[in-house]
Amino acid sequence: MEIKVLKNIMHANQQIAEDNKKMFVDKKITVINIMASPGAGKTSVILKVIEALKNKIHMGVIEGDIASSIDAEKIESIGVPVIQINTGGGCHLDANMIKTVMPDLKMQDNSIVFVENVGNLVCPSTFDLGETIKMVIASVPEGHDKPFKYTSMFAAADVIILNKTDLAPYIDFDKDMFYKGVHALRDNANVFEISCRTGNGIDKLVDWIISKHNNAD
Amino acid sequence: MEIKVLKNIMHANQQIAEDNKKMFVDKKITVINIMASPGAGKTSVILKVIEALKNKIHMGVIEGDIASSIDAEKIESIGVPVIQINTGGGCHLDANMIKTVMPDLKMQDNSIVFVENVGNLVCPSTFDLGETIKMVIASVPEGHDKPFKYTSMFAAADVIILNKTDLAPYIDFDKDMFYKGVHALRDNANVFEISCRTGNGIDKLVDWIISKHNNAD
Repeated sequence: MEIKVLKNIMHANQQIAEDNKKMFVDKKITVINIMASPGAGKTSVILKVIEALKNKIHMGVIEGDIASSIDAEKIESIGVPVIQINTGGGCHLDANMIKTVMPDLKMQDNSIVFVENVGNLVCPSTFDLGETIKMVIASVPEGHDKPFKYTSMFAAADVIILNKTDLAPYIDFDKDMFYKGVHALRDNANVFEISCRTGNGIDKLVDWIISKHNNAD
Repeated sequence: MEIKVLKNIMHANQQIAEDNKKMFVDKKITVINIMASPGAGKTSVILKVIEALKNKIHMGVIEGDIASSIDAEKIESIGVPVIQINTGGGCHLDANMIKTVMPDLKMQDNSIVFVENVGNLVCPSTFDLGETIKMVIASVPEGHDKPFKYTSMFAAADVIILNKTDLAPYIDFDKDMFYKGVHALRDNANVFEISCRTGNGIDKLVDWIISKHNNAD
């Protein structure tokens, strides 16, 4: 009974995700679904990438949170179109939420949309949104063992960000173990080490995003 | 349809949680359900409290993870009974999992059991385990806005730990905002500021746990 319902939900979500994907491809919109633990730096990464690409490409943001509009207010303050989705308890975004809010975001063709998922290393990985890129952000203070524990999230990632590298001197973080965990799940994983605080590594991440956007079908 | 199934699941969980609670009260076992984001320091807090109470009280640990037994191995290495639950994708522990593993933990009367839930600030808050105390651990690098975003988790907490205070000098963490968020949900919240790295504040937390254990019905 449970499983049947879950399958129905997943199937319905997948169909809407495919419609979303088709629309994104038609309009050449690169959609980046950003997933991470609470406090890993999702909003900070979005703000840094927007800062680097402003005046070069049209961008928009969809903010997912259980409650509050704290992050959407940060995005709005820098003049980028943003829509807040409050899930009201729901632990992840789904394809229909994205479909519903996209018209209000009024994106031009050839643009980039950042979707900040609910802070959660578990549930968001199983719900496709129709996104172009699944980005997972880990952060140094969370510890090097996360890829071993949250396997489906790290296995699903097209790109993995290791954020808050500026805190490494103050923390027992074993970088080799982190990479060992990542490579056990995906041996060709794209990993970028960055610090939103110092700006280290942001340039390479931005180059990668732009190359993905330019090389999309 | 969805809601009906969810209600059935919640009702079944609640009944088992009540059975667990009765058993814990009868045997004078204090069960602490520890919930937090991935990497907030759940295992470190457990290790620190065990270190302080070893040879004083009988203790055991139930480790919940999607995958791996990394944390259980850390507990086992210090000679405390531990059982690992791998949820295999599930985003929280439930009352039946606790009921199932308790006999194997072989707890004496008058003891303390730490239950480390799956790292997730969302889903675990809605599933009672029959625990004596719901403990939520936040950590400084996650940022001060977490109580505003993960409201049901912080509202459910009997005690809130603010961990990794040693990192405060390197992070823009607004402690007043953190407390504002906490007190908006529970104006009499118990909050302990600690650092598992330096040991700061652990003694007060341990005193609080012991007083709760000694004053239990």
